[in-house]
Amino acid sequence: MKIIMIGASGTIGKKVIAALEKDHDIVRVGRTSGDIQADITSLVSIEKMFQQVGAFDALVSMAGDIHFGPLKDMTDKDFRKGLDSKLMGQVNLVLTGQRYINPGGSFTLTSGSLSDDPIPMGANASAVNAALEGFGRSAALELKGDVRINVVSPTVVEDSPFYFPFFPGYIPVTMERVVAAYVQSILGAKTGQVFPVR
Amino acid sequence: MKIIMIGASGTIGKKVIAALEKDHDIVRVGRTSGDIQADITSLVSIEKMFQQVGAFDALVSMAGDIHFGPLKDMTDKDFRKGLDSKLMGQVNLVLTGQRYINPGGSFTLTSGSLSDDPIPMGANASAVNAALEGFGRSAALELKGDVRINVVSPTVVEDSPFYFPFFPGYIPVTMERVVAAYVQSILGAKTGQVFPVR
Repeated sequence: MKIIMIGASGTIGKKVIAALEKDHDIVRVGRTSGDIQADITSLVSIEKMFQQVGAFDALVSMAGDIHFGPLKDMTDKDFRKGLDSKLMGQVNLVLTGQRYINPGGSFTLTSGSLSDDPIPMGANASAVNAALEGFGRSAALELKGDVRINVVSPTVVEDSPFYFPFFPGYIPVTMERVVAAYVQSILGAKTGQVFPVR
Repeated sequence: MKIIMIGASGTIGKKVIAALEKDHDIVRVGRTSGDIQADITSLVSIEKMFQQVGAFDALVSMAGDIHFGPLKDMTDKDFRKGLDSKLMGQVNLVLTGQRYINPGGSFTLTSGSLSDDPIPMGANASAVNAALEGFGRSAALELKGDVRINVVSPTVVEDSPFYFPFFPGYIPVTMERVVAAYVQSILGAKTGQVFPVR
């Protein structure tokens, strides 16, 4: 399979690639690194990336920024950071990518546990992650040619100690389990599912 | 209680008002009707509304538009219709309203069942509704002064036959049950909850 990895240079991206690269053709995409550079906040950049890659079998996105900060100071502009980047970036990968994906292919997006398990300062992440999960459930009803879509929703991960103080009492999940969820989505048969890794 | 009703002239709004107006002071807000006019897609209009109303005890929003149409033709612009109106309109009512609401007050927003129970052509609604529910769960952790927030999530309603063809096999819920969910949110003690009406 030809698999496009958006956010290939990230903590999770590298390990998902390691699990797949022996058997599959990986196209690494990053904002400034990888085989192809793309900015998912730009429709032009997304279209150009798909034109460069051509037909593909799976797209995995683990990209996008959100705003993290107190609700009392949160502004419309803060909130739109997550909408423009993590939400619309990934939604637009699907809206555009549906014209390039091979029959039987799949999209795997990334949300995060704040969708249903919130923490202080995470209102933007909760909204964006929940939106991605809602989008995945709905888009699965309409993708043509047996194309699938799922959303992986990890909680705090062992490789990201920076986030530990924001998740008191959470047991960080192993990278092995996170990678396994992506592999299930890509190589399995499910569609319209959220894969929680908790 | 002084209760601000955003979308007061709509199908649901009128009946919620009928259930509350004997015992409470209702401020009716509409785009072009009501005691006060406000456009929730405008930050200036939202701020002006709160300045006109002053301190209040409850805000109920049943306002906002979404895009409804096939995924295969959906564009970034289509998708942002729901983000700019139903999502950010309601989010901004909370982000701004938290500076005007009385201690012990409440916000009640409106999502819809497509958040977790999708139908074809509803990808934008599913994302927007799920985002509102995620936002409500998270904002509840941070609102100060015992201020509460909940989200009412109705499926297709008996008073809206226009939507029936898009919901085959769904038994429309009664307006009585929908109104009851709003009353529970406003007069009850729960916070951070989604009230599904299915």
